[in-house]
Amino acid sequence: MKGEKCGVFGIFGEGLDVSRLSFYGLFAIQHRGQEGTGIAVADGYGIAHHKGQGLVTQVYSEENISQLKGHIGIGQNLYSTCKVSNRKHIQPVIVKNGLLALAHNGNLPSTKALQVFLTERGVDIADHNDSELMAEAIAYYIRQGKKLQDAVAAAYPLFTGAFSILVMNKNSLVAVRDSFGIRPLAMGRINNSSGAHGVVFSSETCSFHTIGAQFLREVNPGEMIIVDEDGERSIQLERSKNKLDIFEFVYFSRPDSVLLGQSVYEVRKRSGEELARECPLDVDMVIPVPDTAVPAAIGYARAINKPMEMALTKNRYIHRTFIQPDQHLRELGVKLKLTPLYEAIKGKRVVLIDDSIVRGTTSQQIVHTLFEAGATEVHFLISSPPVKFPDFYGIDTPVQRDLIAATKSEAQIKEFIGATSLHYLSLEGLIRSTGVDASQFCTACFTGEYPLDIQERAQEVCFDLAKT
Amino acid sequence: MKGEKCGVFGIFGEGLDVSRLSFYGLFAIQHRGQEGTGIAVADGYGIAHHKGQGLVTQVYSEENISQLKGHIGIGQNLYSTCKVSNRKHIQPVIVKNGLLALAHNGNLPSTKALQVFLTERGVDIADHNDSELMAEAIAYYIRQGKKLQDAVAAAYPLFTGAFSILVMNKNSLVAVRDSFGIRPLAMGRINNSSGAHGVVFSSETCSFHTIGAQFLREVNPGEMIIVDEDGERSIQLERSKNKLDIFEFVYFSRPDSVLLGQSVYEVRKRSGEELARECPLDVDMVIPVPDTAVPAAIGYARAINKPMEMALTKNRYIHRTFIQPDQHLRELGVKLKLTPLYEAIKGKRVVLIDDSIVRGTTSQQIVHTLFEAGATEVHFLISSPPVKFPDFYGIDTPVQRDLIAATKSEAQIKEFIGATSLHYLSLEGLIRSTGVDASQFCTACFTGEYPLDIQERAQEVCFDLAKT
Amino acid sequence: MKGEKCGVFGIFGEGLDVSRLSFYGLFAIQHRGQEGTGIAVADGYGIAHHKGQGLVTQVYSEENISQLKGHIGIGQNLYSTCKVSNRKHIQPVIVKNGLLALAHNGNLPSTKALQVFLTERGVDIADHNDSELMAEAIAYYIRQGKKLQDAVAAAYPLFTGAFSILVMNKNSLVAVRDSFGIRPLAMGRINNSSGAHGVVFSSETCSFHTIGAQFLREVNPGEMIIVDEDGERSIQLERSKNKLDIFEFVYFSRPDSVLLGQSVYEVRKRSGEELARECPLDVDMVIPVPDTAVPAAIGYARAINKPMEMALTKNRYIHRTFIQPDQHLRELGVKLKLTPLYEAIKGKRVVLIDDSIVRGTTSQQIVHTLFEAGATEVHFLISSPPVKFPDFYGIDTPVQRDLIAATKSEAQIKEFIGATSLHYLSLEGLIRSTGVDASQFCTACFTGEYPLDIQERAQEVCFDLAKT
Amino acid sequence: MKGEKCGVFGIFGEGLDVSRLSFYGLFAIQHRGQEGTGIAVADGYGIAHHKGQGLVTQVYSEENISQLKGHIGIGQNLYSTCKVSNRKHIQPVIVKNGLLALAHNGNLPSTKALQVFLTERGVDIADHNDSELMAEAIAYYIRQGKKLQDAVAAAYPLFTGAFSILVMNKNSLVAVRDSFGIRPLAMGRINNSSGAHGVVFSSETCSFHTIGAQFLREVNPGEMIIVDEDGERSIQLERSKNKLDIFEFVYFSRPDSVLLGQSVYEVRKRSGEELARECPLDVDMVIPVPDTAVPAAIGYARAINKPMEMALTKNRYIHRTFIQPDQHLRELGVKLKLTPLYEAIKGKRVVLIDDSIVRGTTSQQIVHTLFEAGATEVHFLISSPPVKFPDFYGIDTPVQRDLIAATKSEAQIKEFIGATSLHYLSLEGLIRSTGVDASQFCTACFTGEYPLDIQERAQEVCFDLAKT
Repeated sequence: MKGEKCGVFGIFGEGLDVSRLSFYGLFAIQHRGQEGTGIAVADGYGIAHHKGQGLVTQVYSEENISQLKGHIGIGQNLYSTCKVSNRKHIQPVIVKNGLLALAHNGNLPSTKALQVFLTERGVDIADHNDSELMAEAIAYYIRQGKKLQDAVAAAYPLFTGAFSILVMNKNSLVAVRDSFGIRPLAMGRINNSSGAHGVVFSSETCSFHTIGAQFLREVNPGEMIIVDEDGERSIQLERSKNKLDIFEFVYFSRPDSVLLGQSVYEVRKRSGEELARECPLDVDMVIPVPDTAVPAAIGYARAINKPMEMALTKNRYIHRTFIQPDQHLRELGVKLKLTPLYEAIKGKRVVLIDDSIVRGTTSQQIVHTLFEAGATEVHFLISSPPVKFPDFYGIDTPVQRDLIAATKSEAQIKEFIGATSLHYLSLEGLIRSTGVDASQFCTACFTGEYPLDIQERAQEVCFDLAKT
Repeated sequence: MKGEKCGVFGIFGEGLDVSRLSFYGLFAIQHRGQEGTGIAVADGYGIAHHKGQGLVTQVYSEENISQLKGHIGIGQNLYSTCKVSNRKHIQPVIVKNGLLALAHNGNLPSTKALQVFLTERGVDIADHNDSELMAEAIAYYIRQGKKLQDAVAAAYPLFTGAFSILVMNKNSLVAVRDSFGIRPLAMGRINNSSGAHGVVFSSETCSFHTIGAQFLREVNPGEMIIVDEDGERSIQLERSKNKLDIFEFVYFSRPDSVLLGQSVYEVRKRSGEELARECPLDVDMVIPVPDTAVPAAIGYARAINKPMEMALTKNRYIHRTFIQPDQHLRELGVKLKLTPLYEAIKGKRVVLIDDSIVRGTTSQQIVHTLFEAGATEVHFLISSPPVKFPDFYGIDTPVQRDLIAATKSEAQIKEFIGATSLHYLSLEGLIRSTGVDASQFCTACFTGEYPLDIQERAQEVCFDLAKT
Repeated sequence: MKGEKCGVFGIFGEGLDVSRLSFYGLFAIQHRGQEGTGIAVADGYGIAHHKGQGLVTQVYSEENISQLKGHIGIGQNLYSTCKVSNRKHIQPVIVKNGLLALAHNGNLPSTKALQVFLTERGVDIADHNDSELMAEAIAYYIRQGKKLQDAVAAAYPLFTGAFSILVMNKNSLVAVRDSFGIRPLAMGRINNSSGAHGVVFSSETCSFHTIGAQFLREVNPGEMIIVDEDGERSIQLERSKNKLDIFEFVYFSRPDSVLLGQSVYEVRKRSGEELARECPLDVDMVIPVPDTAVPAAIGYARAINKPMEMALTKNRYIHRTFIQPDQHLRELGVKLKLTPLYEAIKGKRVVLIDDSIVRGTTSQQIVHTLFEAGATEVHFLISSPPVKFPDFYGIDTPVQRDLIAATKSEAQIKEFIGATSLHYLSLEGLIRSTGVDASQFCTACFTGEYPLDIQERAQEVCFDLAKT
Repeated sequence: MKGEKCGVFGIFGEGLDVSRLSFYGLFAIQHRGQEGTGIAVADGYGIAHHKGQGLVTQVYSEENISQLKGHIGIGQNLYSTCKVSNRKHIQPVIVKNGLLALAHNGNLPSTKALQVFLTERGVDIADHNDSELMAEAIAYYIRQGKKLQDAVAAAYPLFTGAFSILVMNKNSLVAVRDSFGIRPLAMGRINNSSGAHGVVFSSETCSFHTIGAQFLREVNPGEMIIVDEDGERSIQLERSKNKLDIFEFVYFSRPDSVLLGQSVYEVRKRSGEELARECPLDVDMVIPVPDTAVPAAIGYARAINKPMEMALTKNRYIHRTFIQPDQHLRELGVKLKLTPLYEAIKGKRVVLIDDSIVRGTTSQQIVHTLFEAGATEVHFLISSPPVKFPDFYGIDTPVQRDLIAATKSEAQIKEFIGATSLHYLSLEGLIRSTGVDASQFCTACFTGEYPLDIQERAQEVCFDLAKT
């Protein structure tokens, strides 16, 4: 499992129902991972947990939540592109019945240092994934007599890559983020009228609104925050600078989250305005591919002063194990996920807006659908630059040869998709729409420039590409 | 089970995978019923079926669909407000192992005639619901030697109320609609390049787009359409006139469906324009309650020339058996289904648009959320008139005393909800937005004027109200 | 699936709860097949059914049984040696949604005639097993206009091998047995005080005691019995003679069943007496391998006037998916299914009695266990001759090379098993214990003499053996 | 839940697969409780566990067992008469995520001292059952700084009643038995060839044979045995004397277990011999009610020199949620669990032997069945005295008014059951058959003489009886 786009949530509370708040906190970031989910809770004496495959609302029952008692909790939603899902990867990782629990959002391009370290110390790491290796390294230092926070600090230099992790033992909670801050991690505070209070962490700030907490600040790159009965403390483990994956703004995060001080919804809307600056078109209507592209379509439509119409209806009842149409049905033109508004589209020149193109096949179908519904022109605008490079730090895009923009020119992509015209937002335009300085971002999926050395995993991909 | 808002689908095909097309056809009208679903298929020798509780994508597996072989199929999605769900009510009704199968969307206010008819003829009707009674009456005539179509025609006078039904036996399919056409039912045609072809029926035209079929026309009120190996025939069973439930436009139908020749999406957008005519407001932004109210918000915002913003984010992962927050969490201000865009709303005067108000409690929460997010004014506009009367013909609204507009004035509702101002679209405005003559609609939920006599069920409700 | 040892049950009743009686009838013959079970019920209009993997008590719920309404029912318990169980093979076979249902106990060594017949007539037989082919052949003649009984008679010559089948359509039930009567099939009558009554069929007479029915007689080899609203009729389809598989007495049937007029329990007890005649031993006690060998041990012990002791305790909670011990546990001497009475066995000379030896590995373990518990001598007596030939007509023994008696002499077997001495009951002794003439039996598993030509399946095995 | 007849198992091992051995150890004592089962395992860092409703073979999967890693394990099988089963009662009790785990076989007639103790110290005991109260009391002392063994010793005086408990924390295992030794608890040792070894505990010695361990001795009444990395130590917490529940010999224990140095099988066989001394009858055969009464029938038959016949066949496929026959089927004489051998019984004078009579209804049915099968006389012998008193210390018999012997004389019972004659073994005869002095037993179910004060629970029953 090379890539991991996941969501983590953590809480240290007094007088709060920690497992229930974790449930709602994870529910709010369900979009970051739908493969499986788990919650671990500590009560000062040990750690209990519940995990399972599927959605937050499917995995936990009232009984599960009631039985998870304690004042500290961490949880994770797992994302996976693996067809064959594996229960083993569902987090939090639990090391030695209750020694510690760890939840991880990220991806380590190299785990050689970790493997050598653990193997030399006699730890059995057969079948261990990235997250389990990290957890074992911390556990090693705890068994050496270190406190949790010192064990995390000691193991930290062994972690190479993108990671936002939450670790807890029976009486303390630690949050750490890699020195580039590639994956997000935010901190909040919760207080109720009867004096109960706590500190919360989440991959996205939208968790805080959902549970009635206040967003305080982001965990800084390279920072470790410790929460225990003595309160909170921060230790900067490494000098660092922000290199947030810009794709969080483009696609990953929920519109009501805030990253680097910017509302994701507003950034997306401004990316539509930037598109209008770069490519103003004379059309009859602007149609978003729901849901991510809606804010960009609002921004674009307003800027060119044309109507935005929700002319593609999304069927939201798609399920993991969806029954696929056979060849006969494909020939009939089955449209399962998106159906067009024939009446609105017929005879119209339309702009279609999406956030990105990965393989291109879905885009091709949508453009085809609009022409079939009677559109006379379909101009396809993308609110980000071409995705040319696979991501090694946590966004699990297909390997490079599957990325249409890695092997085709824009003219060829337009041809393949069948659009009247095609325009990608420039990188400068995208960065301008974020309202943040370009130096703050990892833009590797567009540029191939990674903030750190990809090491062994780059070779895996090169080998893959060599075969094609 | 008095009320039933459901979805039905039927197909008679040659060379087509009838069970798979039924699966996709029902998937497209999942929004009409999520309690349970079933498909019955006939192969000239008998009828096989599969039913279950839950969503279309949960109930059927590839194995189920593969095993349902035949050339005729009908299916239904069940809607139910009953807290305790009951597998027994899942349709299609199967009478006598394979004599006939029936799928029903509608509601019979009186079943006395049916009960008397069947009891006198020795048919055991203990525990039978409306749909089972209809099926038994048809079965009675078949056992008397009549063909399916003649049996349906013979039983038709016993059916009092709103019904759109599909019935099949081992070799023919019949579609019938009540004489007022209160619930929708459309007919389409499907052809593929290799000569396979068929006739399809669905509660909504959106099923046709999904499976690659063409919409032909609506089944007329009082009309029976027969499809068998001799082709299709139509018989007008009763003189009739359209009295479509106007709530289909307001809330029930999918935006990409067409009713009485009008696009639901366009009607909703025009209802926003009508709202602007009746109640133009000087605000900073227009916010829809997603998803139904989005077209109305687009129409209103455009008419008053103010920005429409998707400033309420809907969490779409809500599941049937959702874990409820306890009192402590409620006090924390947990927001599970809708979270606001704080950055966009703060300091703004907003118009909030929803399609209707039923109990008023959800509306109250949303208005409160917007103020909490910093809105200075929250004007609440409803794109339909006040819902004052429970529906006896297929829309399962709570009984009258639970309808806030049945017991409170608009001023009192505004007070209860806490909005800065409140405006309901007038009935005239709503009808104007449909583009159809007022005489074509049943508007009973707003006016209490039913196209037919409510009979015994009105009394039940009166009795209920007497207790309050 | 070459071999099938299964149990079938059928009923035609008036005023009886046919599905519930089928449930109890199948429950009584659960020992004949635990892989899966199904019941089909006809009500004069069509056929409904319920099937599933597992035990009778696991597959059916009160709801399932209540929903199967009708006056005719057939059911089957499936036996299978296949590791990968396949839902597809669970019977009754249902042809064309309700045209007919068929339940089969037996095995056809050759299905070429059936395959040619059906293929020439355009019936798609891809992936069809023996039972499905038989059902399709009958269905073919029904579609040609024949009544069920005439269709069965017409298809009968195409069936080559061992079969006891029950077939029903919507209004009649037919029972047929192959001309050698290799697999059992009995007929009974049921009457209750309020006038309800019916005819029942079962693989074993123990079903009749369980449901309160009276055993009438066996269905004769080559006989077809028809039951419909005109009553019962018998037609002898073919001249024939009894060739019952003698293994029904040795192991398959329940002790309280009656075959060829003989109590299975008494036959087994007499086999113990025959063993005493052939091999009387001077020992301290006689120990049966529970449960099948208990009657033989009673007979032997009484004949030699020594105590019989239940000195091996059987753990009856073994489940299909039992967790297997790993190598370490095997070394510890884990005894899961049978544990010895150390106190009773220590220092004693014992006779151990079992009904048969197949592979020999289990026998080896039991003998080892007794020595470990302190036995000074373990004499192993088998109440039937050596099993040397695989069975092609319904008993699913492993292919010949796995049968220890097919490749080893008795001296070698004694050596392998580790017993002090080993004695098999002679075939003459076994037949004497049955109280029936030798000509009435198929004894192929001991002698290799099959009552009919094995044809293509013999070759399969030869091929298998050639590889070893 | 007043009564608990359960089975416990524990292990402290080095180099052993502790969870797998616990699985097999519990599998061997499945007969003591089939409601639910759980295993908890400690690895020096914390405690992990898996619990569920149902049989050992249903609750654990290979995956569950593999994931429970550690060197200490305890488990329990839960017995319950409650119709509505409750997952909450499944043991081991886990206190504070991993502080300690406790498995209990027994019953506390009074928990007032425990409740007062805990409530005064601020421990929330709402909804706590007996076992949870015991666990909380031990946990209290651990939190006060005591080691596990000292905490158990400190809490011990608060436990009033019958208990055999196993407690563990992350690095030690403690076994304790009440001062009368009412419920059994044995200790064994396990060694394999590669040096792995361990100490095991079980409610019955049959667990030791199953896992390849050696039985060492019983845990003494009032004794605490501690096992940790320093080895084993014994502390006698209280002066005590054996008062083993004699019903363990009569019915509860497996025949291959050993109690107070006596083989359960041999004791049961001798009880048959004692019956022959007290009541020798001139009959044709002796029939046991399978399975418990088989040894007694062997003993009786041999003593009177008449044949013992297994003339009642038991259907072993009965499942928890068995579909019950309706009234019509009862009238038909449905025999689900036991069917008679008609051929063997007809015209015979029989002795029927069972271990005990509780309500009398089952006995009535069996006697009726034998007469129906043609027996001319049915003499009913019971291998223990009349059960007249409910048990408050762990055997969950129905309350007194349901016990037929509590309200009827032997003559009335004979009448009710319909037997030709009825004879109960005398208490003296039963004790003689055990080979142990009468002073070693609790015989309360026969005599009402409890070794300790019943306290509040006696009153509950009196109140119940007052209502009748």
